[in-house]
Amino acid sequence: MTERREKMKARLPRGFVDRTPADLRATARMTETIREVYERYGFEPVETPLVEYTDALGKFLPDQDRPNEGVFSFQDDDEQWLSLRYDLTAPLARYVAENWERLPKPYRSYRAGWVFRNEKPGPGRFRQFMQFDADTVGTPGVAADAEMAMMMADVMEALGIKRGDYVIRVNNRKVLDGVLEAIRLGGEENAPRRLTVLRAMDKLDKFGPLGVRELLGEGRRDESGDFTKGAQLTPSANNAVVSSITLFKPWFFESEQRLKRAHRFFYKGWRKPFSVDVYRKYLLEILNAEQLPSIAEEGLRELEAIRKMVRDAGYGTDRIRIDPSVVRGLEYYTGPVYEAELTFPVTNEDGEIVRFGSVGGGGRYDGLVSRFRGEPVPATGFSIGVSRLMTALKNLGKLTDSDSVGPVVVLAMDKDTESLGRTQRMATALRDAGIKAEMYLGGAGMKAQMKYADRRNAPCVVIQGADERAAGTVQVKNLIEGKRLSENITDNTEWRESRPAQETVPEAEMVATVRRVLGAQKADRERGAR
Amino acid sequence: MTERREKMKARLPRGFVDRTPADLRATARMTETIREVYERYGFEPVETPLVEYTDALGKFLPDQDRPNEGVFSFQDDDEQWLSLRYDLTAPLARYVAENWERLPKPYRSYRAGWVFRNEKPGPGRFRQFMQFDADTVGTPGVAADAEMAMMMADVMEALGIKRGDYVIRVNNRKVLDGVLEAIRLGGEENAPRRLTVLRAMDKLDKFGPLGVRELLGEGRRDESGDFTKGAQLTPSANNAVVSSITLFKPWFFESEQRLKRAHRFFYKGWRKPFSVDVYRKYLLEILNAEQLPSIAEEGLRELEAIRKMVRDAGYGTDRIRIDPSVVRGLEYYTGPVYEAELTFPVTNEDGEIVRFGSVGGGGRYDGLVSRFRGEPVPATGFSIGVSRLMTALKNLGKLTDSDSVGPVVVLAMDKDTESLGRTQRMATALRDAGIKAEMYLGGAGMKAQMKYADRRNAPCVVIQGADERAAGTVQVKNLIEGKRLSENITDNTEWRESRPAQETVPEAEMVATVRRVLGAQKADRERGAR
Repeated sequence: MTERREKMKARLPRGFVDRTPADLRATARMTETIREVYERYGFEPVETPLVEYTDALGKFLPDQDRPNEGVFSFQDDDEQWLSLRYDLTAPLARYVAENWERLPKPYRSYRAGWVFRNEKPGPGRFRQFMQFDADTVGTPGVAADAEMAMMMADVMEALGIKRGDYVIRVNNRKVLDGVLEAIRLGGEENAPRRLTVLRAMDKLDKFGPLGVRELLGEGRRDESGDFTKGAQLTPSANNAVVSSITLFKPWFFESEQRLKRAHRFFYKGWRKPFSVDVYRKYLLEILNAEQLPSIAEEGLRELEAIRKMVRDAGYGTDRIRIDPSVVRGLEYYTGPVYEAELTFPVTNEDGEIVRFGSVGGGGRYDGLVSRFRGEPVPATGFSIGVSRLMTALKNLGKLTDSDSVGPVVVLAMDKDTESLGRTQRMATALRDAGIKAEMYLGGAGMKAQMKYADRRNAPCVVIQGADERAAGTVQVKNLIEGKRLSENITDNTEWRESRPAQETVPEAEMVATVRRVLGAQKADRERGAR
Repeated sequence: MTERREKMKARLPRGFVDRTPADLRATARMTETIREVYERYGFEPVETPLVEYTDALGKFLPDQDRPNEGVFSFQDDDEQWLSLRYDLTAPLARYVAENWERLPKPYRSYRAGWVFRNEKPGPGRFRQFMQFDADTVGTPGVAADAEMAMMMADVMEALGIKRGDYVIRVNNRKVLDGVLEAIRLGGEENAPRRLTVLRAMDKLDKFGPLGVRELLGEGRRDESGDFTKGAQLTPSANNAVVSSITLFKPWFFESEQRLKRAHRFFYKGWRKPFSVDVYRKYLLEILNAEQLPSIAEEGLRELEAIRKMVRDAGYGTDRIRIDPSVVRGLEYYTGPVYEAELTFPVTNEDGEIVRFGSVGGGGRYDGLVSRFRGEPVPATGFSIGVSRLMTALKNLGKLTDSDSVGPVVVLAMDKDTESLGRTQRMATALRDAGIKAEMYLGGAGMKAQMKYADRRNAPCVVIQGADERAAGTVQVKNLIEGKRLSENITDNTEWRESRPAQETVPEAEMVATVRRVLGAQKADRERGAR
């Protein structure tokens, strides 16, 4: 180390986070549960690197207002552009295309991994976050989409989210494409404009029907005063689009007041369960037509097939249902889209009671692998937002850190090499017996060491001062019991006597004594005694 | 999806890899084992993001021949430079400095994570790889370094590497600093040159004593013809440095032939166990001095303290030993350095029998956290190269994929929505019973479906054709038994009859039948029967 450096400020880059032990343990438990569900469905793990060639990732991110379009990119020494992946779907498409010949078809796989977005960070909006995806590549039939919806439902229940607190909502991009065709936004020449409209539609959960209506029209000014330019649809086209995802009847739009009431109603969580027949009837009414564009009819037929398949497999509309309001923001979806929504109420930043909302979703992306292969390669899959789901589980009280007992701390009474060797041997003996244990490594005295043990959440400490060493004994202090005694919590004398806060035992009995103390504490915890 | 895109080539970026199910499962098992050891020592997990401010990472990478110095960097929208981390130590230093007040001191922590090097990729040399680190921050005493060496030894044995197949080698940078001081490379003004010398010394395992000698002198030309400029030491300084890490006696250097023989001997794996006294004696002889520089004496005293402490804790020289040849390539080490070496023989690219070599190491880096804090913050830690260790375990036959049984495949005999719903219900029933199961999702016929099941490593398939449906039955085909029969391996008729390759059972007994088949296969596997 050179001494010339100036003192630097230690700071986490904007939009990134450090992860604590409790967070890491909870994530590990949660992803393990999800993994078990995916495995049970016959999905196998595969992981791709965090870096891909920029052109292989494509440009499918929503909200690309910033110059480098949401992606962190850098140039390789051979001038090729590399990017940090922004999702796990585009890299999977590259992987499948590159390894097509040797993969079983259909190919079911899953993966958890970090993704990166070069976006303006905000509350709950990070630039590195974890997704946990499952995908089936190589099958055009909607049975694969139905399976995805079922698997998402199973994941929710495996995590302890009870039926009624979640719902898997299914819609179909083909229906939305039909609506856009009907309002004359079909065809290759309208592709960029369709994308703008789609992204506006996807804001339904965030801004509600009125907000989407603004984004489809002139534009929307947010609370900070920033203005987002709108899609400039005609009023009737605008009404048709908003209606198609909310199923507001056309006459709602005739009264501003009625519309506002409906907006509040919808925004706060109301969702009517729809059958495909009702969906079709509403669409005909909204578009004021005798029949729907054929692409919309195809979409409705697929939805009906999904509905029947999940019903036959035992998944009722309380778990999986058709919901016209599902859009999904990514450009690459081509058929069924689905979203896992948590329906239990939480209080938002404005103090309003709202549904918790989406924790993941996905859909069919038949074009993504084909980009590489020049032949159709159908695919469908979904992504779970790991941090968001974790927040939800915290809200539901489903995250308990059972593994939070700290190590036994062997205090270092003398700091000469000889004594430290002996202390280390005691710690080693405990570890060899499978007990989490550490020797105190700092330079501080007895009091500071006890404070350290407390901070480490140690169940007990082992002490061997000069007297104990001469007598061949050690002292074992039970910190939990010690705390209880000092707080005068129990007056059951007999019980107290059976659990001494401190005992001196022959050194040869140290491991057995510590084990007994830990066992008694564990039993207490399990009994829920404090 | 727009149709305008040209067909793209699907390719993994240079120096990156995709990871297979077997690799992922093996990594998960291995890291879990390492994690258990670290936890037993009282270390707690903490993870930092993959991205840091470039200046916070510092420039400590060895071999920075390339323009952007081994690191992938990009600029944020506020002009600040960000980099992908190149190790886990520099980010930990930033984390500890930023959270100093609320961490217990000493602070023991561990983390596994991806790191990135912007280097020319080569065989076994990747640009993204995983490290698994443990660090203790806040304690200056070498008891912390001794603990690190013990923990590395325990990790090796926990992974099944037996005593004798590994050794933890310990040296001290202070001794090396003393040697450099003695040959007049001390002082601030020689810092850059010292770094060049240090990096040359660190090439001992790669190029042997003669190679290091070239790098310390005029320079070295490798087999491809590339020339690396040397440190331009005088012959006597050069000899002293090579001697200090090999303990070749000075008279070796008087005969080219003797030196070459010693080189071969050393390079192929010979390591003499040294005591600190012998180490000191050789250094005095090498430097032709009455006494060593005080910094070297301090280093030797620390080594002796480490030796005593690990011995007292029960770790013999067969597990942890002093070895003057350990240097470690990173600039930031300030005291004890240590390396875990696997000593079992493997055949290298040139067909020579060599030791497997290093799978990880580390050392004391007292200056790294201080960069941020303006007060001394001692620290020590090590890093395990996860892929390299995995390769070693494969070599030792310690990686078995016990979890390689595929899912039960429910064949899809009819592809109408009705039938698919029924088929899916059967797969669901199996999954509900905790059995890995999938419905065949492709469009192909019976033969292709059986081939698919085989490729998926399915233990059995479930079939319900029109006849079975009419009779309310299903067929369960045991694929393992079927293979055995078709290969005519057993002639034990009775045994064969007790294990039918195929049976037809009432639909209500499907789950029980499949469970019985899986149980029998599992028992066969456990018996080691084929």
